[in-house]
Amino acid sequence: MKGFFQLISSAEFYRLFSRFSPLAGEEIAAAAGLGRVVVADSLRAGEPLPPFSRSTMDGFAVRARDTFGCSESEPALLEIIGEIAMGYPGTEFTLKPGQAVHIWTGGELPHRGDAVVMVEYTHLLDDRTVEIFRPVAPTENVIRAGEDFEQGAEIIPQQRPLRPQDLGVLAGLGITSLHVHRLPRVGIISTGDELVAPDQPLAPGKIRDINSTTLAALVTEAGGIPACYGIIEDNLEKMLTVCEQALAENDMLLLSGGSSVGRRDFTLQVLEGLHDSELLAHGVAIRPGKPTLLAARGNKAVFGLPGHVASAMVVFYLFVRPLLRLFSGLAPTHGLTEIPVICGEQIPSLTGREEYVRVSLEKNNHDMLPIATPVYGKSGLLRPLVAADGLLVIGRDVEGLDRNARARALLFP
Amino acid sequence: MKGFFQLISSAEFYRLFSRFSPLAGEEIAAAAGLGRVVVADSLRAGEPLPPFSRSTMDGFAVRARDTFGCSESEPALLEIIGEIAMGYPGTEFTLKPGQAVHIWTGGELPHRGDAVVMVEYTHLLDDRTVEIFRPVAPTENVIRAGEDFEQGAEIIPQQRPLRPQDLGVLAGLGITSLHVHRLPRVGIISTGDELVAPDQPLAPGKIRDINSTTLAALVTEAGGIPACYGIIEDNLEKMLTVCEQALAENDMLLLSGGSSVGRRDFTLQVLEGLHDSELLAHGVAIRPGKPTLLAARGNKAVFGLPGHVASAMVVFYLFVRPLLRLFSGLAPTHGLTEIPVICGEQIPSLTGREEYVRVSLEKNNHDMLPIATPVYGKSGLLRPLVAADGLLVIGRDVEGLDRNARARALLFP
Repeated sequence: MKGFFQLISSAEFYRLFSRFSPLAGEEIAAAAGLGRVVVADSLRAGEPLPPFSRSTMDGFAVRARDTFGCSESEPALLEIIGEIAMGYPGTEFTLKPGQAVHIWTGGELPHRGDAVVMVEYTHLLDDRTVEIFRPVAPTENVIRAGEDFEQGAEIIPQQRPLRPQDLGVLAGLGITSLHVHRLPRVGIISTGDELVAPDQPLAPGKIRDINSTTLAALVTEAGGIPACYGIIEDNLEKMLTVCEQALAENDMLLLSGGSSVGRRDFTLQVLEGLHDSELLAHGVAIRPGKPTLLAARGNKAVFGLPGHVASAMVVFYLFVRPLLRLFSGLAPTHGLTEIPVICGEQIPSLTGREEYVRVSLEKNNHDMLPIATPVYGKSGLLRPLVAADGLLVIGRDVEGLDRNARARALLFP
Repeated sequence: MKGFFQLISSAEFYRLFSRFSPLAGEEIAAAAGLGRVVVADSLRAGEPLPPFSRSTMDGFAVRARDTFGCSESEPALLEIIGEIAMGYPGTEFTLKPGQAVHIWTGGELPHRGDAVVMVEYTHLLDDRTVEIFRPVAPTENVIRAGEDFEQGAEIIPQQRPLRPQDLGVLAGLGITSLHVHRLPRVGIISTGDELVAPDQPLAPGKIRDINSTTLAALVTEAGGIPACYGIIEDNLEKMLTVCEQALAENDMLLLSGGSSVGRRDFTLQVLEGLHDSELLAHGVAIRPGKPTLLAARGNKAVFGLPGHVASAMVVFYLFVRPLLRLFSGLAPTHGLTEIPVICGEQIPSLTGREEYVRVSLEKNNHDMLPIATPVYGKSGLLRPLVAADGLLVIGRDVEGLDRNARARALLFP
């Protein structure tokens, strides 16, 4: 069981995700839909938006042809046949040639009205007559019924979390419930005889469990629902029992323990010992994050994460988060904002593995790209993580980055 | 009351925020702290992290001086006096000159031990003797007690939402409750006789209320707690009653109605009619978003937003969100990611006001900056909002942007 990792590239790791599928759909209230992902093809406009042709200006609804050729010096004279109060049906009026109706922004156009003249280009001669100084083209200052969304139209691009404006459109279309992918549930288990829970007193030689809290927050941030199963002692039978239970109750399991070789072997034993599970990955050629394990049972995934929380975070953003997004109905990418940056100093790297360097970013008004400076520190330290804004990416075949070189950085959410 | 706006610049608008203060603190469980902002100076390390000096490698804890000068050809021979099991106090051992202890990653160093030799550079001669092939310097492969955070140290930079790694550090320090700024509560009121709620049938001339849903989601996205007060008819007395109640129950009020001049005047009347309120702004020199109103009562704010949801969104991101962030304990900035982009086409603009153009972004592998293309559409349309990735910023004194010009874009969250 012991021995070297069988390293695969991050691209190969991503290809392993092709065996997983988005979680089933569930019905929710549309108002609670922020960030959720609609099941493909489940959402069409049931009616046109806007439901009727609306004015986008305060002014006069007209038949456009009645204004053709008019000007400041030769205004068109139109008969005012009424006013369309907000919220009342404009189609109760029908415009005959030479007629106009007072209308407000958002008002429904009268029958046979096809354009609106802004009030600024009109002058009331008397209660019944208005002068028009500028011609309007048909549909000018009008949003046609269905111009935004025709009945039956697809509303939201697929594989995208719902945003405030999307929810606004759904409200406008009268859609009050949604069929969205279920949120992934993620069980989190820490192992280690040396660990105590954050609320427990420290005995000599013990340290508090940092990984459970950090991973739970990372899951929440990624839109999942974390469930912490506490700290399990270094006992294979006990560990397998808890893992089986957690796997039954969740869509994904995150195991994290210490970074010693013995603890890594233990995690591998656990993954191999799970009923009906298949080990998919045993090491990945990135730094930090090499000792990453992935197993599957059906559509459920079990990650063995590196023990150092700094490494576990990198693996989470690069691999766990994409799979959570896949489960949620999104494309299996990390979904972090990726921006070009300037290297603030020379950064050496080793070829043969991708490297992810914690960096802090500083505004750089000179050429607008931020300057990325590595936040170094021993791998067990947390302070560099607190100071970092994101991860600088160094490709597999790159020996390092020179000062002032351009590079890509992934921003922490 | 009617008449022209008294336009101020966006910079002047931001200066109005200096009269507002962050909301009071409340105690919450640290595990629920993601995204929350700690009250300044309320958080110090109560103990050192790590609590004791720890090994960062599997190997042998030694007195560094005992390894000085050793090499592959002339290894140092050390007596193994035991093994420090994970989670047991390493200081039960005391190293005399020439002694070593087996240690694992994360283990507590023995008394007088000051460095760790990686197992790769050792060879067991027998159960009691180890050969060391490489010298180590004091503190090598060791994290000292308090090296991450000394007792009494400030843990998290001020005015920053808590991130997963921050929560991890707090867990490591045994901090299980936090004093954080209260989340801002935001009342949302739509006005208009033409509006019906999204779950109601449409009568002729009526449209569904889009703004309440959109604004509620924008508030949630910004970390606030929205409360919708429904659609209030165009009746000043009724409106003032609901506003007074909503203002009593919330920290901020968002009013939005139609875009007609009459509706704008109505909103102004409401803001001026509120008990003890002071009108701070009546129009701002941005596009879209000019008809923005701001009033204050004590530390509470009331915004009158433009009627078109597209304009209301721009005003929300530029002005409402910074004030919500101020209330939450953050710096009063929009907090949107701002990135340099390349203009995909020529974009005309008018001088005298800042312009925010909805753009979609496309990857551009050539020089790494994304290409921003305007998503045009009549101002009442929602589809451009659904298609846009963010807002391109055109400065007040700029006549427009040429194709391929560099510009700044604010990304939707």
